[in-house]
Amino acid sequence: MPEKGFQDYYPDEASYCYGCGRLNEHGLQIKSYWDGDETVCHFQPRPHHIAIPGYVYGGLIASLIDCHSTGTAAAAAARAAGNIPDAGQRPAGGSFPRFVTASLHVDYLRPTPLGVPLEVRGRVTEIKGRKVVVSAIVSAERQVCARGEVVAVQMPEHMTPRK
Amino acid sequence: MPEKGFQDYYPDEASYCYGCGRLNEHGLQIKSYWDGDETVCHFQPRPHHIAIPGYVYGGLIASLIDCHSTGTAAAAAARAAGNIPDAGQRPAGGSFPRFVTASLHVDYLRPTPLGVPLEVRGRVTEIKGRKVVVSAIVSAERQVCARGEVVAVQMPEHMTPRK
Repeated sequence: MPEKGFQDYYPDEASYCYGCGRLNEHGLQIKSYWDGDETVCHFQPRPHHIAIPGYVYGGLIASLIDCHSTGTAAAAAARAAGNIPDAGQRPAGGSFPRFVTASLHVDYLRPTPLGVPLEVRGRVTEIKGRKVVVSAIVSAERQVCARGEVVAVQMPEHMTPRK
Repeated sequence: MPEKGFQDYYPDEASYCYGCGRLNEHGLQIKSYWDGDETVCHFQPRPHHIAIPGYVYGGLIASLIDCHSTGTAAAAAARAAGNIPDAGQRPAGGSFPRFVTASLHVDYLRPTPLGVPLEVRGRVTEIKGRKVVVSAIVSAERQVCARGEVVAVQMPEHMTPRK
């Protein structure tokens, strides 16, 4: 059985996100994992994720950075709280906290080729209270194509799902 | 016949963008227009463009800001060059130049409700050579939900479509 991604530990009601919700059948369903002190996500853009023919759409790159970074924030906060999934792969608290994005910045360094898998790597640069800052790079064929930073904040109570 | 959007003046080979390409049948196909010295785009998120239930996905908001701003940059550059569509709606140069995103910044100010149309308004804050800077706000029900800035650069020759 493959290792679970961070997003598999979100509670069900927080798992409909277009970018990373395992329950959004129309979405991207990205999965993020620890790799030492960094986090990693691999994603294969679909043929229609085009900017101009041959290159990946910048909004998709922003979306990958966004969701991988909020996932990284959730995993880092859980780890900082000692809430680490055990061998049965259930985090001590039952699920990871859900983070939302306060700000997102992306620098597009070079055109990103379409048709190859992308790698997103994240690194926590600050963790303080309910705020986690994550820097991320997106690579294709081992070339860095974009660099991003996300300020993520643990989801406030008033932002619970609207019926 | 409804007024054409900026994106309708892109050359065909630059019209497959997932966010704004009129020829991308799977994409968002946003349309942007002048409104005095500002630009405006209206978009109705689809039910699957969810963050958590009831709220719009942040990556979609980033995508709207991105494509509306590159469209604004193209229209502003065309207007600065006197390349304004005539009554027959054909720009003097035949088409608008295509801009790509060098950097994108989004501040998410409040959760954006899902189920209502969004308005994206753009304003050119700098235009110099091949670079245009656009600031944008995204509103729902007349409340500003996000604010963004895009540095757009006229598409370099080496980024012509890859076959």
